[in-house]
Amino acid sequence: MVRILGIDPGSHKTGWGIIDAEGTRFRYVASGTITAKGKELAKRLVLIADDLDLIIGQHQPNVGAIESVFHAKNSQSALKLGHARGVALLSMSRAGLEIGEYSPTQIKQALTGAGRAQKEQVAQMVQLLLGHGGPFGLDESDGLAIAMCHGRFSGSPARKFLAAKMLEKAP
Amino acid sequence: MVRILGIDPGSHKTGWGIIDAEGTRFRYVASGTITAKGKELAKRLVLIADDLDLIIGQHQPNVGAIESVFHAKNSQSALKLGHARGVALLSMSRAGLEIGEYSPTQIKQALTGAGRAQKEQVAQMVQLLLGHGGPFGLDESDGLAIAMCHGRFSGSPARKFLAAKMLEKAP
Repeated sequence: MVRILGIDPGSHKTGWGIIDAEGTRFRYVASGTITAKGKELAKRLVLIADDLDLIIGQHQPNVGAIESVFHAKNSQSALKLGHARGVALLSMSRAGLEIGEYSPTQIKQALTGAGRAQKEQVAQMVQLLLGHGGPFGLDESDGLAIAMCHGRFSGSPARKFLAAKMLEKAP
Repeated sequence: MVRILGIDPGSHKTGWGIIDAEGTRFRYVASGTITAKGKELAKRLVLIADDLDLIIGQHQPNVGAIESVFHAKNSQSALKLGHARGVALLSMSRAGLEIGEYSPTQIKQALTGAGRAQKEQVAQMVQLLLGHGGPFGLDESDGLAIAMCHGRFSGSPARKFLAAKMLEKAP
C-alpha cells in the first residue's frame, strides 16, 4: 500500500488530496482546500507552506504528486503559479517525499481514459473511483485526481506498460 | 541602524547580500551565491530554502528586499523564476521579515541615479558605496544592490521624499 498526496497549487487556493493506493484500488484518506487570504503574497505563501507541512505531518504520505505545467496564460500568471508551486514542492521535498509530475492530459487520461475529458467528468470519476460522494471543491477534487493519477501510473511494471500504451493513444 | 537582506532569486543561482544601513551610510556585512545543483527542481528548492534559513539565522537581518518582476522572457522562464522567488519570499516571511519589493529601474536608480544604467555600472557602485572591493559574483552583487536600494528608499521621510522625486525623473 502506498499513501499519496496530490497537490493542485495556487497562490489563492491550493487543493490537496490524500489517498491510499493498493494495486488497482484506491481508498480516500483526506482532502481539502487551503485558502490563503490577504494582499501580501509572501504571507499567503507562509499560510500555504504551514498548512501543507501540517497535513504531511498528520497523514504521513509516502509520495507526492503535482501537475506539471508547460503552458500558462501569460508570464504574470506563470510567475504567480510558480510561487505557490515552488512552496508546494518545497514542503513535499523537505518531508522526504519523492514527487511525481503529471501533465493535465495524463491526469485526465488516468481518470477517464480520455486526455481531453471535461473538468466535470474528471470530478465525477474522482467521486466514483473513491466511492466517496464528496462534495469536493474544484481544487480539492483536482488534488485527489493528481494523487490518483500517480497511483495509476506508478504501480507494477505491467501497469506502467499499460499506462504508457494508454498515453500513446491519448489525443 | 537596520540590517537588510537582499535576495536575487534563481532556480540555479540565488544571490544574496546583507548590509547595515545607518542614515545614508551602508556597511557590508556578508554576501554570497547559493548554487543549487541537480536535475530535480524540488531538491534545488530545498537547498535554496535551507541555505537562506541558515543565512537569516546567522546574520539576523531586520528586513528583506527582493526584485519585483513584471516581465519575463516567456511563461516558462517566469514559472521557473517564480519557484525560486516563492521559496525566497517564504524564508524571509517565515523569519518575520517585512519585505520590500523594487523594480529593476528603482534598483538602478537608487545606486547610480540612472534607471537605465548598465549592469557593470551597478556592480561598480555596489563596490564603491560599500567600500568593499569584492570581487562579487553577478548574482551576489545584485543581492547587495537590492539591499542597498531598500536602505535608500526606506529611510527617513525626507529621504523617502527625495527618493520619490528621483524616481519621478527616472527615465
